[in-house]
This record gives sequence, structure tokens and C-alpha cells, in this order.
Amino acid sequence: MSTVSPADQPPFDPRVAAVFADIRATRGSDFINHFWRYLAFDSALLESTWAEVKQVMATPSELDPLTKEMLYIAVSVANGCGYCVHSHTTAARAKGMTPAQHAELLSIIALAGKTNHLATALQVPVDASFDQDH
Amino acid sequence: MSTVSPADQPPFDPRVAAVFADIRATRGSDFINHFWRYLAFDSALLESTWAEVKQVMATPSELDPLTKEMLYIAVSVANGCGYCVHSHTTAARAKGMTPAQHAELLSIIALAGKTNHLATALQVPVDASFDQDH
Amino acid sequence: MSTVSPADQPPFDPRVAAVFADIRATRGSDFINHFWRYLAFDSALLESTWAEVKQVMATPSELDPLTKEMLYIAVSVANGCGYCVHSHTTAARAKGMTPAQHAELLSIIALAGKTNHLATALQVPVDASFDQDH
Amino acid sequence: MSTVSPADQPPFDPRVAAVFADIRATRGSDFINHFWRYLAFDSALLESTWAEVKQVMATPSELDPLTKEMLYIAVSVANGCGYCVHSHTTAARAKGMTPAQHAELLSIIALAGKTNHLATALQVPVDASFDQDH
Amino acid sequence: MSTVSPADQPPFDPRVAAVFADIRATRGSDFINHFWRYLAFDSALLESTWAEVKQVMATPSELDPLTKEMLYIAVSVANGCGYCVHSHTTAARAKGMTPAQHAELLSIIALAGKTNHLATALQVPVDASFDQDH
Amino acid sequence: MSTVSPADQPPFDPRVAAVFADIRATRGSDFINHFWRYLAFDSALLESTWAEVKQVMATPSELDPLTKEMLYIAVSVANGCGYCVHSHTTAARAKGMTPAQHAELLSIIALAGKTNHLATALQVPVDASFDQDH
Repeated sequence: MSTVSPADQPPFDPRVAAVFADIRATRGSDFINHFWRYLAFDSALLESTWAEVKQVMATPSELDPLTKEMLYIAVSVANGCGYCVHSHTTAARAKGMTPAQHAELLSIIALAGKTNHLATALQVPVDASFDQDH
Repeated sequence: MSTVSPADQPPFDPRVAAVFADIRATRGSDFINHFWRYLAFDSALLESTWAEVKQVMATPSELDPLTKEMLYIAVSVANGCGYCVHSHTTAARAKGMTPAQHAELLSIIALAGKTNHLATALQVPVDASFDQDH
Repeated sequence: MSTVSPADQPPFDPRVAAVFADIRATRGSDFINHFWRYLAFDSALLESTWAEVKQVMATPSELDPLTKEMLYIAVSVANGCGYCVHSHTTAARAKGMTPAQHAELLSIIALAGKTNHLATALQVPVDASFDQDH
Repeated sequence: MSTVSPADQPPFDPRVAAVFADIRATRGSDFINHFWRYLAFDSALLESTWAEVKQVMATPSELDPLTKEMLYIAVSVANGCGYCVHSHTTAARAKGMTPAQHAELLSIIALAGKTNHLATALQVPVDASFDQDH
Repeated sequence: MSTVSPADQPPFDPRVAAVFADIRATRGSDFINHFWRYLAFDSALLESTWAEVKQVMATPSELDPLTKEMLYIAVSVANGCGYCVHSHTTAARAKGMTPAQHAELLSIIALAGKTNHLATALQVPVDASFDQDH
Repeated sequence: MSTVSPADQPPFDPRVAAVFADIRATRGSDFINHFWRYLAFDSALLESTWAEVKQVMATPSELDPLTKEMLYIAVSVANGCGYCVHSHTTAARAKGMTPAQHAELLSIIALAGKTNHLATALQVPVDASFDQDH
């Protein structure tokens, strides 16, 4: 079920086809996951979203690729996006995440969820020494 | 402002004092941040929470200390916990996070926030190949 | 699957039947979607919820009906309510939302999700000029 | 700071004055907290919101008044509403919540926050026996 | 579908078997729900999570068992954890929650969700009298 | 307080100065609000974020400027971003939002928050007729 129809059969809109070709080339795989197929209901939204994902996630940068996927999982869990949790857990595994690393990732996410709730329940005032606003 | 009164002057409850001493020894610093001072309104809750934070965040493990702090920031941002964002950004800086790493962390969190919203708006069905349930 | 049993076969509780009749009359359609059928496990909760939805969403007001549905979608996406995203996207289409408007709606929701995360990560102080508290 | 101006000086709009009088009578106190003063920027919104709060929270019902306030705190913490956490923690204390009950409330909220994150990270399928949909 | 494989057939890891045995003994039932079977992909995470759930939820304390389950439901709804809503609604029913109590619980959760959104939209400043920070 | 230092005094990094100049030209105002001043701690993140905001929010499109601001408010409220609620409420007023429209916006956001919580608590299954996935 989805709120839009997927682009799952050729011939596609040429703009969609170009993005799909770039996804395949960037990832070195023929597989296009559902997120892109459904987002393709609007070619401009598909293009701009893929451009940003490619820039942030698939370009060599300060952080290593596995760390980036684990950060993506952390945000997706806290935001309750089931699809995103699935897709980025799969990506993290493909980039070498071991079961032990997965378990540690979950223990940190769970602990942060716990202390986030505690700090909000206590309405703890921010320590003056944390401030960078000067 | 807070929903409870802090433990900010000695003499403390001995159980609180013991936790504060362990926080200082573990961190090698005299500073006790507000989260622990306000959580000290209940010594049992303080003890169990610190024990878990120490185990997960201050014990050598699969992931390096800076990665762990960045994951904590990611969850805290998505959960909207201002205090937690402040405290763990300060901790990440103390563990060596550079401005460039901070900026990249924010670009990943922001992108995940964006695509989380898109996937939820599209109600994208999970790809069969993501499933580990077998 | 649900946490309650639906009211999906007549004869109904007369209070449920009255609400269902009013939903049909207000919408000009025989179709009663699942939300109301499951909420009918408690007739008082059904009555008060429908009364409020009818007042806010089905009464001529400052905002046009399509804008109101798009606002409902925006909140439902941010809150991660899959059912609500589905039902209000369907309602928005019935009120004339075009694919281009749908795509623009998603681009705004996605951008807001992104900058919400950035502002929270930065803990930006509110500008004095924004304040209406005088 | 607020996004609207409060109604904090008489003479008020008579509809606002009537709601304020009913709040005072219902609570047996002269104090009107900020939520109502700011919501008073729109008298209809003030009236309908107070009517619902009075019906749900201030009318004898299945659940006792303190349990109702603790449930309100639980939702408000999870939704990250600082003002609501403050106002309902104050209300719970006024209805007899002890420090030990407050600490236990926080330990349940924190644990639920933790396991909510774990279940979402694992994407646990719902057990068939939980289903009431028949 | 899940992001990990469940432990659903003996022989198990002895640490997993020990936790499952304790769950059965504590609950007086042979049934082990999915949350624990999937969390068992990491025996240490299973052990620590069960120990905390047992301590907080299955040990006699200030709050009665049904109130504790309703609080868990409240947090789980606000956090959008479908699995958790199902499992704790089932648990609350097993502990005696009536349909009338369930309906009242939902009316409080729904009202809190509503006023949480209003207070955030208004950015209501916290009343000085709510402060416990002294 | 903030987690980064703002760029609030010239001379700026030329890339920051160029973005600030474009913000001023686009908005026809000298005022640069805090979000951009703090985001300027990283010029690349500032550039890409402003480019997207300008494209989505300040370019003539399917939806009118006031509707776009109200949608932004709706998402920001649901995500609990106080700064964003303030800045976009100010922007909506500047684009002509009346107090009556503001009140109606809040009544829709509040109602959506309420029924989002109800649908999640009930775990309502999606109606087959809502599906666009064909």
C-alpha cells in the first residue's frame, strides 16, 4: 500500500530513467529500492532528493560510510520511520556492520531514548558551560 | 526552571554522593552536569541510570567514543531534547569532534529528517529483500 | 490487526448508527472508513470525535477545504501516523489535489522536517522580534 | 516569549471572562495558568478546549484524578511539550503525587521510551494473539 | 518482516534460554512474545532489557500493575510504536482493563496530544509558580 | 544559548556574506534571523540549506505563499521545534495571516494531533480503497 503509484515498469519518464541509471552506477547494483520508485511520481522531487542523498551519503567525507549509515538509522528510529529503519539497516550491513555493532548501536539508541525522556520529564536547565553562543 | 529540586549542595544523601564520586572518577573531572543533579531527587533512579550510561557510553566497546556521542546527538535531535543536544554536543567536542565533523553530522541528521518525512508521506512498502525474518 | 474490534455489521448501537448516518449525510457517500468503525468501540468517544471533526473540517470557514486537508496531512506525516496520512491524502485527492500540488506539499513537509532538525541541533535562540508577548 | 499576546488584564472579552470564571470555579482557585491566558487570543478555541479539558479531566470517571494527571504527563513527555510537563506535574503534585510516585512514573516513562526505540529499531512483527480485529 | 532474525526454535543460546525461562516464570505463562524473540539476536541486550522490564513492571511498587500498563500505552502511542501499543494493550486487558477504562485512557491520550500541539503552537511561557528549582 | 557560535559581526566569510546578501535581496529586508546566523558556522551547509529554502518557499509555485507558511508551521508544531514555530508564525503574519486564520490553523493542528493519537492507539488498519499502489 502506498499513497502514490510507483514507477515500476519501463518506459519511464526520461528524467526518472536518468536518476535510476545514476543510482545504479553510484551503487554498483541493478537494484532500485522502493523509496526511489515511489518518489518517482514526481521527477523533480526525485532528482533533488537523490542529488542530496548522493552528495551527503555517497561522497567521501569526514565520516566513514558505515558511521553515516548508523547515524541515519539512529534518526530514523527516533522518528519512527519503519521503511527508513529497514533500508538503512540493510545498507549498514552491506557496508560491514557486524551483529555486535548492530547490538551496540541499538543499546545507544535505546539509552538515548530513555535519557531524552528523563531530561524532558525533569525539564533540566542547560548548564552555562555548554553554551557556545559568544 | 525544573519540575524537581536539584541536589546541588552537600551534604548529600550518601547514595547520591557515591554516584557523584563515580561520575567524577569515570570522567576525570570535578564537574557534575545538571542532568545528574536533578535526577538525584531519587537516588535509586540516579543509580540505575548512571550505571547504564557508564556501561554503554564509558566502557570500551565495538564503537569508538566519538561515534557513540554523535549517535546520541542524532537520537536527541530527532526526539527534540534540547538539554540532551547541548550535553552530548559538548561531550562530542571534548572527544575531538571538529567543526567539519559537526557540520557533516548535522547534514546527515537533516537529510534523514527529510527522507523520513518523505517515506512516511509516501507510505512506501518495505522491499522484500530487506527482510531478515527467516 | 487492531487493538479493538470494529463495529462493522448492523445492528449497531443506536448512538453509533446515528453518527454513521451523519457521516454519510455530511460526506454525501455511503462509505464509512475504518477509523470511525474502530472508534465505535466506545459510542461516546465516537460522538465527541466526529462532532469535532465535522465542526473543524466540514464547516465553511476561513481556510478552504483542500488547504485544511493538506494541513492535516502535514501534521500526520510529522507525527508518523500512517493511517492518517492515507486517509487524508485520499480526502485531499477527492477535494481536487493534483499530483503537482501533492509533490509540492511533500517538498514543503520534507524541507520543514529538515530545518526543524537543524534548528534543534543548533539550539537556535528565538529572535526578539518574533515575540508577540507584550 | 509567545507566538500570540496573552489576555492578562481585564476587561476581557465576555466569552473569555466566562471561561476564566468557570476555570476558577471548577478548580476552586483564583489562579489561571498561562495556557488559558494565551489560548484566549481566540475565544472560540478557548471555549471548546476548556470544555473538553473540563469534561475529560475534571469530571468523576473510571480513572482517579491522579492517574489521569500521570497519564497526561506521560504523553506530554513523549511529545516533548515542556510547558505541558510543567503544568501537569504541578497538577499531579496538587492531587497528592509523592516524590516516590513521581520517581516511579519517570522510571516507567523512561523504560517505555527505551523499549519503544528498540521495537522500532527491530521492526518487530505484531504477535497474532494481540489482534482484537475479529 | 524485521531487521533481525528471531530466536524461535530451540536449542537456544543458554543465556537466551535462561531469560526465556525467567519470563515464563515471572508471567506464569508459556507464551514469549515477539519482542523478546527478536531482541534475542543479542543475548546481552536481551538480558539487560528484561532485567529492567522485570524490575520496573513486574515488581510490587508505588503504582498498581494496571496503572503502569496504561502509562506504558500512553508513552507508546505518543512515540508511535505500533508493536508496543499492541503488546501493552494486551497486557492491560490481562490485568483487568475494561472497555470503559480503555475508552477513557484513549480520551486522555487524545486530549493530551491535542493540548500538547496547542501549547507548542502558542509557545506558552512556563508559569513561575510551576518551578521547583530552588 | 546555542551549540555553535553565530556569525553576527562583519567581516564574514565571503560565502556567508553572499548568502546573507541573497537572503536580504530575496526578502526585501535587511533583517537576517538567527537561524541563518548560527547555521553560518558552516558555509557549505548554509549555502545548500538556503538554496533549498529559496527554491521551495520563495519561488512562485502551485501553492500560495501563506498556505506554504501555514504548512511549515503545522510540521514544526508536530515536530516540537519551538524556534521554527516562532519564525514561521512571524512569516505567516507578514504574508497576511489574520488572527482568525491563525486560530483556525491551530484548531486543525490540534485536531490532527488528537486523531493521530487515536488512530495510533487503535492501530486502525488502512482501508483498501485508500491504496494507490497499483
